[in-house]
Amino acid sequence: AAMAGCGWARAVRGLLLDVSGVLYDSGADGGVPIAGSAEAVRRIKASGLKLQLCTNETQATRENFVRKLRAMGFDISVAEVTAPAPAACHLLRERGLRPHLLVHDDLVPEFAEVDKTNPNCVVLGDAAENFTYENLNEAFRLLIGMEKPILISLGKGRYYKETDGLKLDVGAYMKALEYACDVQAEVVGKPAKRFFESALAELGVPPEQAIMIGDDIVNDVGGAQQCGMRALQVRTGKFRPSDEKHPEVRPDAYVNNLAEAVDIILQHL
Amino acid sequence: AAMAGCGWARAVRGLLLDVSGVLYDSGADGGVPIAGSAEAVRRIKASGLKLQLCTNETQATRENFVRKLRAMGFDISVAEVTAPAPAACHLLRERGLRPHLLVHDDLVPEFAEVDKTNPNCVVLGDAAENFTYENLNEAFRLLIGMEKPILISLGKGRYYKETDGLKLDVGAYMKALEYACDVQAEVVGKPAKRFFESALAELGVPPEQAIMIGDDIVNDVGGAQQCGMRALQVRTGKFRPSDEKHPEVRPDAYVNNLAEAVDIILQHL
Repeated sequence: AAMAGCGWARAVRGLLLDVSGVLYDSGADGGVPIAGSAEAVRRIKASGLKLQLCTNETQATRENFVRKLRAMGFDISVAEVTAPAPAACHLLRERGLRPHLLVHDDLVPEFAEVDKTNPNCVVLGDAAENFTYENLNEAFRLLIGMEKPILISLGKGRYYKETDGLKLDVGAYMKALEYACDVQAEVVGKPAKRFFESALAELGVPPEQAIMIGDDIVNDVGGAQQCGMRALQVRTGKFRPSDEKHPEVRPDAYVNNLAEAVDIILQHL
Repeated sequence: AAMAGCGWARAVRGLLLDVSGVLYDSGADGGVPIAGSAEAVRRIKASGLKLQLCTNETQATRENFVRKLRAMGFDISVAEVTAPAPAACHLLRERGLRPHLLVHDDLVPEFAEVDKTNPNCVVLGDAAENFTYENLNEAFRLLIGMEKPILISLGKGRYYKETDGLKLDVGAYMKALEYACDVQAEVVGKPAKRFFESALAELGVPPEQAIMIGDDIVNDVGGAQQCGMRALQVRTGKFRPSDEKHPEVRPDAYVNNLAEAVDIILQHL
């Protein structure tokens, strides 16, 4: 019923999945899998559909992120994860940029191969405890001292929930630096079109044959649709009933969770 | 020459002066008076013109701020200072608001008389070292938990200069919280019209008989002009030659410093 009339689902060859709020809920001890999601990932793979995770996670390297997912029972490899930090490294190399990093300690190894001497841009991630007054002033001074300040932000989320409460996400700090320096950040990560395009390239499927499944109405659903994909919103994670009346974004369908999405998609094949 | 043709200067009865960048430059040991400024304040008072300082300073109570100015040789009393914190207290009482304060430790005594139990708004000042990750998350959680979040910001400056380098000002943190909570802050302080109006009320002079003298093209000059005052920009403090080509704001005249402004104004009387 959720996808009645969705004839387009017959053409699907690959799925892009958001991770937090779709595969697991972040919380104590790193997170709790959402019921049926690990089994759903196995069924996707068994069906022959291609699968790629498309996440804005920037608090860990992909290797550590995948280790956490595998420990929760998800059959996922590093190559199946598209994340902002590797995409940023690609962009930095392409443009000869040398970043000053204001990111989480656990993300730093992603930038090991990148020249960071004499920085000519700032890369901002969800730095969490590294968002100190001193570190913010340091990133600001570097930016304002550049002839043409370049600020690259790994996502633009407003906030997220952890077990000890809501936390400001990277987008809030991005706005602070944008205002202080009178610049506009370049966002790497969802909902940037280029980021979805690189996930699709890794998936090996054109947008009209791919479905994005996410819990974030704007960054997952809206972003994917802008790239020509169909997109489903799950009613898990940060989903709120008010999302179903969103003024700008309307998913191609709602599903209760990833398991239900996979049930329906596989029925249509 | 700087004010040739400024016949309006004859009608002037009172002056509003910005402080940092006009009376003194902030720096080591709290600041250094700008040459001729202390004498200029004395000459204003001797002339019979009324005088009020109109500052966005929020790192100290007015009492401590005046103590610092007097130590630098300025003949100023507490009643001659219009500053954001007392204006915010007025607004809080008027609307029955109980603030959570994210401000500099030295500003807290200004809010001694205000009920701060069970907060229903957040007041943000230039908190400097108090802008920690924890304090920002705490202010954010309080705001996002309110049915209708109210954020009151003591100014909206982008940054300022201290002896050890540039620092992000309150406006950057205001933008971070605005974005995270999807609200617009109410700004108390320059360039808010209401703030200039209360400074004029304390000056006891209507806007058409008052002149604002400041170094900030937008917050001093533009803000005062919006209230019907004339405004001069000094070429001290944060003045930059590019200000003279500002796309939106044009001062009624430029002067090299406060001493020159007073010379010219007194000649016109």
